[in-house]
Amino acid sequence: MRDELKQRVYEANMLLPKYGLITFTWGNVSEREGDIVAIKPSGVEYDMLRQEDIVLVDLEGKVLEGALHPSSDLDTHLELYRNFESISGITHTHSEWATAWAQAGLDIPACGTTHADYIYGDVPCTRGLTSDEIREDYELNTGRVIVETFRELDAAAIPCVLVKNHGPFTWGKSAAESVHNAVVLEQAAKMAFVARELQGSGPERISQSLLDKHYLRKHGKNAYYGQER
Amino acid sequence: MRDELKQRVYEANMLLPKYGLITFTWGNVSEREGDIVAIKPSGVEYDMLRQEDIVLVDLEGKVLEGALHPSSDLDTHLELYRNFESISGITHTHSEWATAWAQAGLDIPACGTTHADYIYGDVPCTRGLTSDEIREDYELNTGRVIVETFRELDAAAIPCVLVKNHGPFTWGKSAAESVHNAVVLEQAAKMAFVARELQGSGPERISQSLLDKHYLRKHGKNAYYGQER
Amino acid sequence: MRDELKQRVYEANMLLPKYGLITFTWGNVSEREGDIVAIKPSGVEYDMLRQEDIVLVDLEGKVLEGALHPSSDLDTHLELYRNFESISGITHTHSEWATAWAQAGLDIPACGTTHADYIYGDVPCTRGLTSDEIREDYELNTGRVIVETFRELDAAAIPCVLVKNHGPFTWGKSAAESVHNAVVLEQAAKMAFVARELQGSGPERISQSLLDKHYLRKHGKNAYYGQER
Amino acid sequence: MRDELKQRVYEANMLLPKYGLITFTWGNVSEREGDIVAIKPSGVEYDMLRQEDIVLVDLEGKVLEGALHPSSDLDTHLELYRNFESISGITHTHSEWATAWAQAGLDIPACGTTHADYIYGDVPCTRGLTSDEIREDYELNTGRVIVETFRELDAAAIPCVLVKNHGPFTWGKSAAESVHNAVVLEQAAKMAFVARELQGSGPERISQSLLDKHYLRKHGKNAYYGQER
Repeated sequence: MRDELKQRVYEANMLLPKYGLITFTWGNVSEREGDIVAIKPSGVEYDMLRQEDIVLVDLEGKVLEGALHPSSDLDTHLELYRNFESISGITHTHSEWATAWAQAGLDIPACGTTHADYIYGDVPCTRGLTSDEIREDYELNTGRVIVETFRELDAAAIPCVLVKNHGPFTWGKSAAESVHNAVVLEQAAKMAFVARELQGSGPERISQSLLDKHYLRKHGKNAYYGQER
Repeated sequence: MRDELKQRVYEANMLLPKYGLITFTWGNVSEREGDIVAIKPSGVEYDMLRQEDIVLVDLEGKVLEGALHPSSDLDTHLELYRNFESISGITHTHSEWATAWAQAGLDIPACGTTHADYIYGDVPCTRGLTSDEIREDYELNTGRVIVETFRELDAAAIPCVLVKNHGPFTWGKSAAESVHNAVVLEQAAKMAFVARELQGSGPERISQSLLDKHYLRKHGKNAYYGQER
Repeated sequence: MRDELKQRVYEANMLLPKYGLITFTWGNVSEREGDIVAIKPSGVEYDMLRQEDIVLVDLEGKVLEGALHPSSDLDTHLELYRNFESISGITHTHSEWATAWAQAGLDIPACGTTHADYIYGDVPCTRGLTSDEIREDYELNTGRVIVETFRELDAAAIPCVLVKNHGPFTWGKSAAESVHNAVVLEQAAKMAFVARELQGSGPERISQSLLDKHYLRKHGKNAYYGQER
Repeated sequence: MRDELKQRVYEANMLLPKYGLITFTWGNVSEREGDIVAIKPSGVEYDMLRQEDIVLVDLEGKVLEGALHPSSDLDTHLELYRNFESISGITHTHSEWATAWAQAGLDIPACGTTHADYIYGDVPCTRGLTSDEIREDYELNTGRVIVETFRELDAAAIPCVLVKNHGPFTWGKSAAESVHNAVVLEQAAKMAFVARELQGSGPERISQSLLDKHYLRKHGKNAYYGQER
């Protein structure tokens, strides 16, 4: 079982270069199974990464298996797993369009059905961390500020966030689904940028009925997209 | 004959990843022959798609052949086939530049000969669907609002439309031609965006004589582009 | 000799897809040797093109050799060869950034040394053609309006032009050099766009001394770039 | 030892096309070892370049080994090596986003952690060279104006500069590290552009504490990113 978990996390990490979401080692994917989290090791190049390099830790970050240091963003992942019960996979990248929105400190408005098919509302951008939050336990505090941002939001319905001046985190029911959502977010970020430039003051948001329709035709008990019904 | 139809639709669908018009399964191509429409199955990944997966339906959407559910956008395709007699192929994508214009809710102005070579006027953007139109028969109503948009326009001369907050549909005399027009539209959308940014208030439109010249040197009885005359 | 000419023109045409300057058949390259001009046939897909398809014509456009129709832009090429004595190769594309400037009807300002290394001043955009010029002898008149644009300019020092609402033509001492200049122009067009967006009212132009330095260190008798001195 | 130096410089130069930083021959990489500098020859196409073409010179530019002329930018490299003691590798490119900022004559603001991970502050843009500086010893004066720009800055902490109206130079402890920083700079330049467009008046800068955190978790004695601690 641990080997299968590592294999899934290895494969999900390798999707990042495939989808053009990654430069050098600027990203990492993890998956939780029960109380075990498998995550990419820190600073290892993607074309050097092997299944056996994936590090296993418990939910407090204690290394259970693996010779390498886990990703320096581990504490952010763990804070999300501890707080968002519905999620079992997390992806962090510096993908360029989503990161640019994070640098601008702006939410990405839901203005099209591509967005609505996967993300049930605007993509929130966190507040900036305070100097204190940055100085000590920075990665843990990054997780905390994400959790704070979702106080009134449903992490199962909005599977992504922008950390201000940093970049996106996305999640899902598996490592693979969290990468899928990272691809969706990057496309949504690019198209929202172009639409905003075209409209001057930013695009009108999609109507609530259209948002409902698209999100719900792909998710939930009345979904009718795809082959499973 | 049914196998040839499926093969053509299979090949036309596979052009979408070739031309970079597609992410995951966000698009579909169909072709009509007589009263039969062949269309991509819903939610099937492009690198898994096989000729035998293509679904055959009649013009009311009854499945004639195929084990899989047809594309969830089927009812939009059928409404267009029932109303636009000149067309026999339809492509739907979420290609990023065209979709961004759709999200902005703007027509793409005809401002260059690349556009004029294939599209005889601005690319219209539909009105938004009402909540009622979204709630019931959404895909059919998407087709209806396209037909409504073309009440004063000629679908044979303007082979594409933007559905507001959604994305483009393109068409032609075959599945392959509808994909060709999807490529044209995406390029026209990108170049119109850049020209508009350069000019501030949007580019001047192309003159009517230049629009006529370019469209008509490629189409109609006096065409003199290419090898057939 | 005719086979070598065709081979050079074939190879130069095949550089267009290599450098991403072409979609479908939207472009063509020619070369003149003495009174013979070799040019791509009209509407032939680049992945179907063969050396023997290249058409040979005289400077008045009479076909000397070749079974196919020459490019529909032939008369533009010929008008340039008849008027610009220093040039022996011409490339026409709809490359997206240069075409967007053409659609905006704007000259591309010389604002960097990348531009100055090859283009000794702004890239001029022609006036629009009149309705009369469009209706009759359109391609010839396109050539004439380019020649008119260069009345006070040196086609040897500024190897490119934007035809308003249409796209770029570039040239050089051979077919290959004209393609090289098409690549330069596309890059210069993109970077000038970004610089203009950054500066609001468009970038300051490069100083005359820097323009001189860069152009003249690559061209003319005191050039000291590369291996030949 | 000289062969290893040449090999490293050869390999670092070949990273430029791999990372999409180069068009034609518009770029060059060098490395210094003791008093010897190895650099790309001038004007040689990247797909023709061989290890044995790399030119060895001393710190005054005298050729020690190699049949070809060294890069025409050699004197800029040498001036940087003579003045920035901490650096042993230099890369010059015309990569498009960084070059566009140089053409606009603007510093690239530090507005995200991607930037802060490698560059400890804004990327400075030099003043323009005077006509006199351009006319004589242009490449040497380009080096001098970079050194002048860093009078109050630490070249070890800010491993890059934009030369106004020209393009970027980046550096590091080896040829390979200078190329790595060229990739970082290009990404930072693109994301800063998009963020600036989104915010109108340009993005807020990253806070000093976040800049410190990210730069220092990758650099210096308390770094905790990657596998070496």
